[in-house]
Amino acid sequence: LRPATDLNSFQGHIRNLQAEINESLRTLSLADQPDYLYTPVKYVLKGTGKRLRPILVYLVGETFSADPGDLLNAGLAVELLHNFTLVHDDIMDADSTRHGQPTVHEKWDESTAILAGDGIYALGQLLISQVKINTLQAIRAFNVATLMVCEGQAYDKEFEHNHNISLEQYFTMIEKKTGWLIGLCAEVGGILGDQDEEVRSHLRSYGINLGKVFQIQDDILEIYGNEKSMGKSLGSDLVAGKQTVLTVLARELFPAEWAGYWRKIQQLEIDEALSELRGYLEEKNILQRARELVDTYDKRARDDLNAAFGGYPHILKEFTDMVINRKK
Amino acid sequence: LRPATDLNSFQGHIRNLQAEINESLRTLSLADQPDYLYTPVKYVLKGTGKRLRPILVYLVGETFSADPGDLLNAGLAVELLHNFTLVHDDIMDADSTRHGQPTVHEKWDESTAILAGDGIYALGQLLISQVKINTLQAIRAFNVATLMVCEGQAYDKEFEHNHNISLEQYFTMIEKKTGWLIGLCAEVGGILGDQDEEVRSHLRSYGINLGKVFQIQDDILEIYGNEKSMGKSLGSDLVAGKQTVLTVLARELFPAEWAGYWRKIQQLEIDEALSELRGYLEEKNILQRARELVDTYDKRARDDLNAAFGGYPHILKEFTDMVINRKK
Repeated sequence: LRPATDLNSFQGHIRNLQAEINESLRTLSLADQPDYLYTPVKYVLKGTGKRLRPILVYLVGETFSADPGDLLNAGLAVELLHNFTLVHDDIMDADSTRHGQPTVHEKWDESTAILAGDGIYALGQLLISQVKINTLQAIRAFNVATLMVCEGQAYDKEFEHNHNISLEQYFTMIEKKTGWLIGLCAEVGGILGDQDEEVRSHLRSYGINLGKVFQIQDDILEIYGNEKSMGKSLGSDLVAGKQTVLTVLARELFPAEWAGYWRKIQQLEIDEALSELRGYLEEKNILQRARELVDTYDKRARDDLNAAFGGYPHILKEFTDMVINRKK
Repeated sequence: LRPATDLNSFQGHIRNLQAEINESLRTLSLADQPDYLYTPVKYVLKGTGKRLRPILVYLVGETFSADPGDLLNAGLAVELLHNFTLVHDDIMDADSTRHGQPTVHEKWDESTAILAGDGIYALGQLLISQVKINTLQAIRAFNVATLMVCEGQAYDKEFEHNHNISLEQYFTMIEKKTGWLIGLCAEVGGILGDQDEEVRSHLRSYGINLGKVFQIQDDILEIYGNEKSMGKSLGSDLVAGKQTVLTVLARELFPAEWAGYWRKIQQLEIDEALSELRGYLEEKNILQRARELVDTYDKRARDDLNAAFGGYPHILKEFTDMVINRKK
């Protein structure tokens, strides 16, 4: 991993990091046998994620002049943790496509996917335990975050098809399911940069708030995104009865009207339902309200950055902008 | 946890340890919410396992005067690791009963069981990271062993319904699936007792060999055990096409005859098939050969103990006898 020499070439720096992370994942030292475990593990690691999480570990750590080898190990560890949760979540949510390719349980079967997820998580543990500075603190943060992500996924499942979930409950869910893992990435950058608990706590809060923005946008992209660039079917969360910011807001803002409307569009084919829904959410200013929530948590995330750094590192401003402005 | 004051009261010491471990598992500090995660986690932790693994951690550590708090944390951690693998293996093997009660995926569903397993493993990680001596070494041993157990489970799945698995392949599978976790328990006792790598390696080898004995006996009990005291149906591994020491030996010793015989008994009801099989395995001295393998690995385990301790601690002799002589 190379530090950014020219901060104006932020895009180039990100592309270099992605390439380095992808290469490291592809060449991770793994046994050849048993095939039953390592073939699907390698399949997952060859996927084409955006690698936002290890990039965040690196960008934060780089700001504190952390050791590049530590940042690589920790970055790979959080990416493996992320992939472990995706492989298992895809089984639980019966999702058949991830990043434009068949999910593990779809390509093989559920047993293969359960075990591949377990193996990927164990590999992540071995990687995080390789960091040379504040090792135990990094390991503990890693595992506390894992438990929070499990809690978030549990809320996600518990709330399925429940028409009484409040915006507050929605935020509890996404804070744990999406926020904590991104919070971990920023925090680990601070741990490897040998920062004190106050700075780490601001960094974690930054990541959690950025994660909330990320999830709200994910929910919006589920309805308004481009199917091809997303690499998955739109509206699948709605079909699965998932809580999304738009449906939760619609219910909170128009409780009586929404129930009837929701029943009505559920009768339609998915494409027609999406088109109907897009019109409704815009007309009722619900999309606008969701975008205001993006702005609220965007601002909180930037305030956290300021508090952590006593200023505003250009490279993390760029990163935050990139996440906030993403189209997929 | 109290050390054994009277080595003659070994049984009493074991019962005290079991009670203390069960109580600690029951009162483990866990969040109340979300129910979707913690209700099944608590259900698993209230189960009635024999707790052989944490007991082994304790007995080895006690011999080296390790800190009792460390032994308790590490003991709980290995028990959680063990339970995490059981919950996931039970899904993969479609087993509906464990320790006489419904498995998690049977009582709830597969998604619940996947997530409960993940959460239990994360809790185990947090516990092992609480030990105060040689913490990183304990954590690394814990995760190396986890990966080995995943490899073992992968071989187990890969070998299902394969009629060409050799005794050597069978031993590769059980060494990883069953041996490594028990090896970890003995090794962790040595790590917490601040022993050098040579002693730890003998301890790990002891546990791995004891694990092989344990698994061979498990395979024998599958056919010859008492259904009630086992808390599960006999013959279920055979129905699932699993490799067991008896069927692998039968195939190696009587390749031509066994293929036809196996096809024949597969046509029978399970009780009749078991009764037929018991007669055949005894008549052909296959049961006897399996018992000789028990003796071989029993001896290796005891040699490892001698090498680790430069002698033979009474309490570990008693423990080894207890495992070797178990009837369930």
